[in-house]
Amino acid sequence: MNYKMILFLAGRIVLFEALMLCLPAIVSLIYGEGCFYAFLVAIALSLALGGALWKFSKPKDSVIYAKEGFITVALVWVLLSAIGALPFTLCGEIPSYIDAFFETVSGFTTTGASILPDVEAMSHGLLFWRSFTHWVGGMGVLVFAMAVIPDMSDRSIHIMRAEMPGPIIGKLVPRVKDTAKILYLIYIVLTLVQVVFLLFGGMNLFDSFVHAFGTAGTGGFGTKADSITSYSPYLQWVIAIFMVIFGVNFNLYYLMLIKRFKSVFTSNELWVYVCIIAVSTALVCVNIMPISGSFGDSLRAAFFQVSSIITTTGFATADFNLWPGFSKGIIILLMFIGGCAGSTAGGLKVSRVIILFKTVRMEIKRMLHPRSVSVVRFEGKPLEEGTYRSVSFYFVLYMLCLFTVILLLCLEPFDFETNFTAAVSCFNNVGPGLASVGPMSNYAAYSPASKLLLSFAMLFGRLEIFPLIIALSPGTWSKK
Amino acid sequence: MNYKMILFLAGRIVLFEALMLCLPAIVSLIYGEGCFYAFLVAIALSLALGGALWKFSKPKDSVIYAKEGFITVALVWVLLSAIGALPFTLCGEIPSYIDAFFETVSGFTTTGASILPDVEAMSHGLLFWRSFTHWVGGMGVLVFAMAVIPDMSDRSIHIMRAEMPGPIIGKLVPRVKDTAKILYLIYIVLTLVQVVFLLFGGMNLFDSFVHAFGTAGTGGFGTKADSITSYSPYLQWVIAIFMVIFGVNFNLYYLMLIKRFKSVFTSNELWVYVCIIAVSTALVCVNIMPISGSFGDSLRAAFFQVSSIITTTGFATADFNLWPGFSKGIIILLMFIGGCAGSTAGGLKVSRVIILFKTVRMEIKRMLHPRSVSVVRFEGKPLEEGTYRSVSFYFVLYMLCLFTVILLLCLEPFDFETNFTAAVSCFNNVGPGLASVGPMSNYAAYSPASKLLLSFAMLFGRLEIFPLIIALSPGTWSKK
Repeated sequence: MNYKMILFLAGRIVLFEALMLCLPAIVSLIYGEGCFYAFLVAIALSLALGGALWKFSKPKDSVIYAKEGFITVALVWVLLSAIGALPFTLCGEIPSYIDAFFETVSGFTTTGASILPDVEAMSHGLLFWRSFTHWVGGMGVLVFAMAVIPDMSDRSIHIMRAEMPGPIIGKLVPRVKDTAKILYLIYIVLTLVQVVFLLFGGMNLFDSFVHAFGTAGTGGFGTKADSITSYSPYLQWVIAIFMVIFGVNFNLYYLMLIKRFKSVFTSNELWVYVCIIAVSTALVCVNIMPISGSFGDSLRAAFFQVSSIITTTGFATADFNLWPGFSKGIIILLMFIGGCAGSTAGGLKVSRVIILFKTVRMEIKRMLHPRSVSVVRFEGKPLEEGTYRSVSFYFVLYMLCLFTVILLLCLEPFDFETNFTAAVSCFNNVGPGLASVGPMSNYAAYSPASKLLLSFAMLFGRLEIFPLIIALSPGTWSKK
Repeated sequence: MNYKMILFLAGRIVLFEALMLCLPAIVSLIYGEGCFYAFLVAIALSLALGGALWKFSKPKDSVIYAKEGFITVALVWVLLSAIGALPFTLCGEIPSYIDAFFETVSGFTTTGASILPDVEAMSHGLLFWRSFTHWVGGMGVLVFAMAVIPDMSDRSIHIMRAEMPGPIIGKLVPRVKDTAKILYLIYIVLTLVQVVFLLFGGMNLFDSFVHAFGTAGTGGFGTKADSITSYSPYLQWVIAIFMVIFGVNFNLYYLMLIKRFKSVFTSNELWVYVCIIAVSTALVCVNIMPISGSFGDSLRAAFFQVSSIITTTGFATADFNLWPGFSKGIIILLMFIGGCAGSTAGGLKVSRVIILFKTVRMEIKRMLHPRSVSVVRFEGKPLEEGTYRSVSFYFVLYMLCLFTVILLLCLEPFDFETNFTAAVSCFNNVGPGLASVGPMSNYAAYSPASKLLLSFAMLFGRLEIFPLIIALSPGTWSKK
């Protein structure tokens, strides 16, 4: 194992975090907030740690393989969250470090689950930092670093593969670095467009940026206790539509840029994603009509919540905790499905769900006609045996991890609905659950041990299990 | 498709049900109950229908393949339940036919979920019939028929494969018919041994048989409103131990009979099964100690409930609805695991769980060392690629079906815990769930539509999905 290279890369990213922390520091300076000094301390610490790692572990050999890629990603994400949590505790707004760690992991993993009892009491600098972690975490910290740090090795496909969600990672262009740059450019442009739309609707500049970060990263941290509820219908529609946009595979936007429209409009995943949103919105809309009054209100509430949950953002304009059971059932199901692969959304991903259904159909066919040769086609190409086997396997692993988290959460004195949806929501990087962790509540009541557990559930979910499970399994570290 | 052969076989089994119905008829005659006539009508109807099917669909060609095997099993199980429900409605003790159908499906599938608000008000004949369906359904109706009907084709391995639970069906001896006979002999002897143990503990003859049927089939129907709670500790231990015994793969008992003890004691599945029971009992015992008083009482309650749930029997000596969340979490997890393959228990089966874990380990290894060749070993033999692929696939299908049932149940006005555990419990053929369908409650409050849904969930679970999904998929019936 190339330990030196792993630490070297981690050092680079920690240095990079110092740079990221400058942004909220500036914000708090502008607002004249005391937490400016907390950011300075965090920046100094990142510089010291990152510098030390970088200096003392310069590798002779920069070659890394899949294993090192996974371990680097796991290490970097834990380190970033541990450092990113410092400002919250240093300036005293989140006194417990474990709470701050939970909040930061929730930020980077774009979950949006919060332990804050009163988000409106937070200073601007910290609110900005919280949402900025969504934005960076959404597309990937290491992918970001690849795009901007000049001498990152071009072997870094292993890192990209470990950090980017979805069953198949396509390089848009031959060089990984250029792929990362293109993805981030699209990401930045879309975010800015949303900011403009929000400003146009009368949202102030600060809130516009915070909510655009939350939407783009499909995170869900905002600035108000009631999330998006008190904003105007126009702003709710803007955010809902942008959530859907950020839940689409970014490769499709690139294909649109290079005018390959046909590939975009024949994308299986896009169509299924749109259909799931349409059908779920219709079902929920009809189901909640008796309690939400007019058809217009029901439609807006249904579309907003469906978009928010399928893209695993977690913004809310209605307390779906009070909805009928069927709508709640749909909400829970959408948490599992998640957005498209290659987007900033969490969950299983629509493409995996499609492949799972196609595999099921194929296997049943095989069972009835053992000698027939059947091929699963996806996005116009026949799926390789390896891909759909690994998708089934991912699903098995996913459920095993989820069962473990649920069982351990049951040690808490809450009802089953709370524990179950807390686990499902954190593991799929959604944010709100149901019952005591509903969209108008928070995770403050959980014990520190459960908060740590849920933090790791969020990391497992965001990194799609493998990096952390490989970093934690003894077999990886044994010499043989 | 060999339609004639399917109908012919179905006819034979319906005739066979007429024979089965004679037993409860005799019981009700002995007790001088009015439901005797209800049984006579049901017997006459089975004779007429079975006779007609048998007479008018004599096939020229008795060859059947996998597809016909699945469809026969699906058809037979639905028919048997539809006819078996008649006595309940005819004599008026369950006025609604859908309720009676639910109760009978629950019987044959060895689920043990009931819609009866007061089981103690039922007549002896019907109580006997309810539990007898457990006993026959546990080992398989068609397997039973194969063992006793002289001229059943020896091609019937396809039927046995479709009806017997577990990932790998082993023929004990070359002829299917002989395998069926051996299995049923072991089954009968074990049941009678339990009856003797129960009689010895002071249970009356009728109750002994009813409870032995419920235990042997891992069903859970009894004669008392509080299940086994009011019986003596000795009787509770006897039933708990026999539940564990009936959750073991019956092939192991055959191996013991032919003195291949080594194969028994090196069985992976047996060891894991015993370990899960031991660990779960220990955890639950410690967890419930504060509410159940002495160590002895806790241990008995923990062991009984753990055995009852992992074997998917569903008898209860404690209302685990009132237990702490962690114990409830374990109970829910055990519902998923289920007993050993080749036993009368439901659930995923321990062997599948083992294979899933081994597959996960192997796939992670493969990911780290793509060029290494790793083999999954199970029960001393390397697992074929086909077997572990089909186990992962079964798990995917299992979860998809379960999600569907849960979502549809959410249309009911009950809380999530009730709907979730009702679906999990019925699909895994356990019986009791939590909250409003807890061990001291029943399923009466569900709407007729949901009762039908749950009936099919039970059938899907008992037959391990394929027979019904194949019978219901349009592709099966299209000519091409």
